[in-house]
Amino acid sequence: MKHTISALVANRAGVLYRISGLFARRGFNIESLAVGPTENPEVSRVTILTDGDDYTSEQVTRQLDKLIDVKKVRILPQEETTLRECVLVKVHADTKNRSEIIDIAKVLGCDIVDISHTTLMLELNDRPSKIDLLIDMLSKYKIVEMARTGAIALQKGDSSI
Amino acid sequence: MKHTISALVANRAGVLYRISGLFARRGFNIESLAVGPTENPEVSRVTILTDGDDYTSEQVTRQLDKLIDVKKVRILPQEETTLRECVLVKVHADTKNRSEIIDIAKVLGCDIVDISHTTLMLELNDRPSKIDLLIDMLSKYKIVEMARTGAIALQKGDSSI
Repeated sequence: MKHTISALVANRAGVLYRISGLFARRGFNIESLAVGPTENPEVSRVTILTDGDDYTSEQVTRQLDKLIDVKKVRILPQEETTLRECVLVKVHADTKNRSEIIDIAKVLGCDIVDISHTTLMLELNDRPSKIDLLIDMLSKYKIVEMARTGAIALQKGDSSI
Repeated sequence: MKHTISALVANRAGVLYRISGLFARRGFNIESLAVGPTENPEVSRVTILTDGDDYTSEQVTRQLDKLIDVKKVRILPQEETTLRECVLVKVHADTKNRSEIIDIAKVLGCDIVDISHTTLMLELNDRPSKIDLLIDMLSKYKIVEMARTGAIALQKGDSSI
């Protein structure tokens, strides 16, 4: 069971250090962590995906809430949350298998952002599970290199955390 | 002058803690940091955008290279790099200004992923500068909340770091 935790934190030097220190000390099983600016220059938003039971997510949330830099923290309701992640994948593609990879890209809604004689670079922005599927489909070919952002999330509707 | 630093690091508990600790201690001016898994389950990729002179970027790279968890680190050549970031923005939109916001979304290539009586949620995946432009355009309206992933990057062509 995956949980999405969203926290607003002070945009101060060392805040990522203190948050990641908490996870390192407690040994929480974190699947991804993304941090970026918000509409308020003094505040950053940290999105954390945990892959554990309800208890773990509540513990992570409670411990985060104790940190002085953390202004607000919420577990987002799964059904009402928009989750997005971005991946860039460079995959081995010669004239023999290029069309196969282009077909996969089309079906999954990827953009093809670069081509060379021996590679294609694909971009996908979607739910993390869809990105896992892309990587699984491409694993048949040789993945030369890839980069994933980690997931971000906002609750649907007009509310904010 | 922005620089993109890409590092392959051991996927071990505490690696983000040690990297962010380095930045906190040295006071490096980091614009964004994204960390995610790679094709190798033992390795994560960290992408760092710095907004400083060449000297700062070289210092960040050199200090990262000294960390035991860091396997490889490179400054990516600006002209030959594909940079991507993802943003979700929930913006105040009533019947009076909804069309204006939809026009902005169309021009910048956003997906509109949610609607309520008083809000729209926009998604954009593009270069960080394009995302800055979207946020600037939406700042005229009320941004209810937003989340950014931080940038990821891969070098174009068939090489890998």
